[in-house]
Amino acid sequence: MQRILIIGAGRSSSALINYVLNKSIELGWLVTVADANPAAAEAKINGHPRGQATWLDVTKVNDRRELIGRADIVVSLLPAHLHIDVAQDCISLNKHLVTASYVSQELYRLGDEARNRELIFMGEMGLDPGIDHMSAMQRLDGIREKGGQITAFRSFTGGLIAPESDNNPWHYKFTWNPRNVVLAGQGTAQYLKDRKLKFIPYQRLFGNPWKIKVEGLGPMEAYANRDSLLYRSQYGLDEIPTILRGTLRYPGYCKAWDALIQIGLTDAGFPILDSAKITYHELMEALAPRGNGSVKDRIAQLLEINPGGEVMQKLEWLGLFRKKKINLPDATPALILEELLLNKWKLEKDDRDMIVMQHEIEYLLDGQKYKETSNLIMKGEDEEDTAMARTVGLPMGIFVRLISQDKIRATGVHIPTMKEVYEPVLEELREYGMEFTDKTVKLNK
Amino acid sequence: MQRILIIGAGRSSSALINYVLNKSIELGWLVTVADANPAAAEAKINGHPRGQATWLDVTKVNDRRELIGRADIVVSLLPAHLHIDVAQDCISLNKHLVTASYVSQELYRLGDEARNRELIFMGEMGLDPGIDHMSAMQRLDGIREKGGQITAFRSFTGGLIAPESDNNPWHYKFTWNPRNVVLAGQGTAQYLKDRKLKFIPYQRLFGNPWKIKVEGLGPMEAYANRDSLLYRSQYGLDEIPTILRGTLRYPGYCKAWDALIQIGLTDAGFPILDSAKITYHELMEALAPRGNGSVKDRIAQLLEINPGGEVMQKLEWLGLFRKKKINLPDATPALILEELLLNKWKLEKDDRDMIVMQHEIEYLLDGQKYKETSNLIMKGEDEEDTAMARTVGLPMGIFVRLISQDKIRATGVHIPTMKEVYEPVLEELREYGMEFTDKTVKLNK
Repeated sequence: MQRILIIGAGRSSSALINYVLNKSIELGWLVTVADANPAAAEAKINGHPRGQATWLDVTKVNDRRELIGRADIVVSLLPAHLHIDVAQDCISLNKHLVTASYVSQELYRLGDEARNRELIFMGEMGLDPGIDHMSAMQRLDGIREKGGQITAFRSFTGGLIAPESDNNPWHYKFTWNPRNVVLAGQGTAQYLKDRKLKFIPYQRLFGNPWKIKVEGLGPMEAYANRDSLLYRSQYGLDEIPTILRGTLRYPGYCKAWDALIQIGLTDAGFPILDSAKITYHELMEALAPRGNGSVKDRIAQLLEINPGGEVMQKLEWLGLFRKKKINLPDATPALILEELLLNKWKLEKDDRDMIVMQHEIEYLLDGQKYKETSNLIMKGEDEEDTAMARTVGLPMGIFVRLISQDKIRATGVHIPTMKEVYEPVLEELREYGMEFTDKTVKLNK
Repeated sequence: MQRILIIGAGRSSSALINYVLNKSIELGWLVTVADANPAAAEAKINGHPRGQATWLDVTKVNDRRELIGRADIVVSLLPAHLHIDVAQDCISLNKHLVTASYVSQELYRLGDEARNRELIFMGEMGLDPGIDHMSAMQRLDGIREKGGQITAFRSFTGGLIAPESDNNPWHYKFTWNPRNVVLAGQGTAQYLKDRKLKFIPYQRLFGNPWKIKVEGLGPMEAYANRDSLLYRSQYGLDEIPTILRGTLRYPGYCKAWDALIQIGLTDAGFPILDSAKITYHELMEALAPRGNGSVKDRIAQLLEINPGGEVMQKLEWLGLFRKKKINLPDATPALILEELLLNKWKLEKDDRDMIVMQHEIEYLLDGQKYKETSNLIMKGEDEEDTAMARTVGLPMGIFVRLISQDKIRATGVHIPTMKEVYEPVLEELREYGMEFTDKTVKLNK
């Protein structure tokens, strides 16, 4: 009997917990789901005979260590900054660890210790990061094995709303952490184009999105992720002239989001002192430049847009000009915006979400230039059973199986770029409908 | 014998340490100066018989507590986020505390405990915040005492270079923490004008500065501080229609600083991955928009400025377009800029700095409108004995004397807005040449 411990039973944990419970009898697992809210954990386990829910306040060191001590494999669904405590426990108690979060420098520093203990700590094992790494590496390795030389790598992912459930002017709803959506892009995005570094600061990131064609879906747009350069070495592409990763949105989103940035509504620096007392209209009045005309007119002037145009319609639809109290004491502009969007961009019960991922790889083979385009489009069932929860959760579940069945030789801290990981995981993901469509065309030299 | 403990012997500590040592014999003090670098503390004490230097790593809890336990009054010159640990020790060991930093919410929460122990924790006891509060309150209270009704309060402070030492195109040198200068204004500035809230997000803060006339100095410019609204209640101005606080600069500074922001050079979000390998020129190339023309041309285009104009000359003078290695691994744009400016904006040995403070108070008295303007211009002696160090350090030193002589009745956590504090402190500051010039004129109604 092996014991699997899953820490965190939030809404996005269903697909993972279901997978692990479904495999538990066949593979001889006992599954413990720990959460600060044990009722949530109970609900996910739903009476399964191999499942057990337990209360855990992850900041209580002794409780956390006791639980981890009884497990063989630990999956952490905690917020990213809490993984390190769990990882340190896993080192001292000799346990394997799986997460879907970006691997921090702090976590990488545990690599030697994990290796010495023959443990595997697998991070970035969700969708993005996760499936993106695995599907990209499968294609990049394939091209390299046949002797191709890779000259450009572009990869785009979006967690979107399916067209049939798209009924708002932003063409977007929350299928993932709203806070991350509001703060997306803060910092300096970095990528490489034709051997030249390109840096885009936040205030210019959304103003000029790339136009991306996705087969079967029509035109989309994308803004640059911050981290493309990181993956040069991790993907074995140190000498590549062009590498970029971006986030996909439906057309029109980026320009309207840029308006929110320029107005000042995404700033998370410090609170608006009067935010408990004022209305959205007063907030916009306070942010609008001086001058004649209505607040709307002056905001349009600030943004240099048509006051009756699409961007302004999106802003109005959010209720930003309503004389309704904000009612949030000491809230930053970003928090005020997040609370407003939570309500406006909420998934309805029967809404289907949609994951879109597209890789574009250019390479040279026997003097000929090729471009391989691979894409994945996957829809959820409803508000609960989302494509997002499945694509984030299933890779972790499958990787737990691989560890449990002794199929992983790697030890240390990793992201899923190795063949022994991506091949079996991608193969099993196909059973769940996650299949990429590939197309290769010749390019003129 | 009373024991005064000063934690921190950085360059800005001289005026404070000299004051306390000078008073030590007359007032029966023993003075301990603690620093991670005991040689720096030794140098400040310079053999004074009542002074003692000691090594302290402030993160070592036991060492810190032992030192604080032996003191009667503690002055913390530590970075702001470290005051809270010292303050908690002061609570448990029953010691008074003085700092020049903004009082955090966390520190305010110790108010009841400090009061119960009859301790005074005085924060914001430097220049800005500090002398600004005291000099403003003296005038505001004076107007209120004669029956005036205050209708507008504007206050501006700048730590500048004296005109005779001003020899660079920015008309600015560092006289205070360079990091704070680089990150100045991040967040959303908030003030009140004619009963209307005004919020300015960072990316629009420097683009449109106010023009301020300072008697004896000519035209200056100012950008809004983030915190004007905070002082409505602390100054007893809850119903005031107009209140704003701002930072003074010589003309031309703000527009050029705005250029650095728009280019993306003040972002402190996360590191530029290739910052160890590239030149300043490559950094600017990476940040410049695509297009024809040189990097300079494209930066000028981005900023919508004349490529041969004043702003571009300031950027060039910084060396931003030089093909010289940056040589800083994993540095954020803000850190790259800070390191560049450190060198360019360094005070030379005989440079004199200059503090400028100006309050503008409008009030109604017996049906007549008045405007009182008060200003302070004070110059330093040289690179070491700066006006900044004196105006920050002396108020703390004087306040230590007031506590030591039992002249303060207030207990709890405070900023220096009470008459029992500002009157004796401002009076003694006059002996050190810190004297405000006041002028009142009638306004047309």
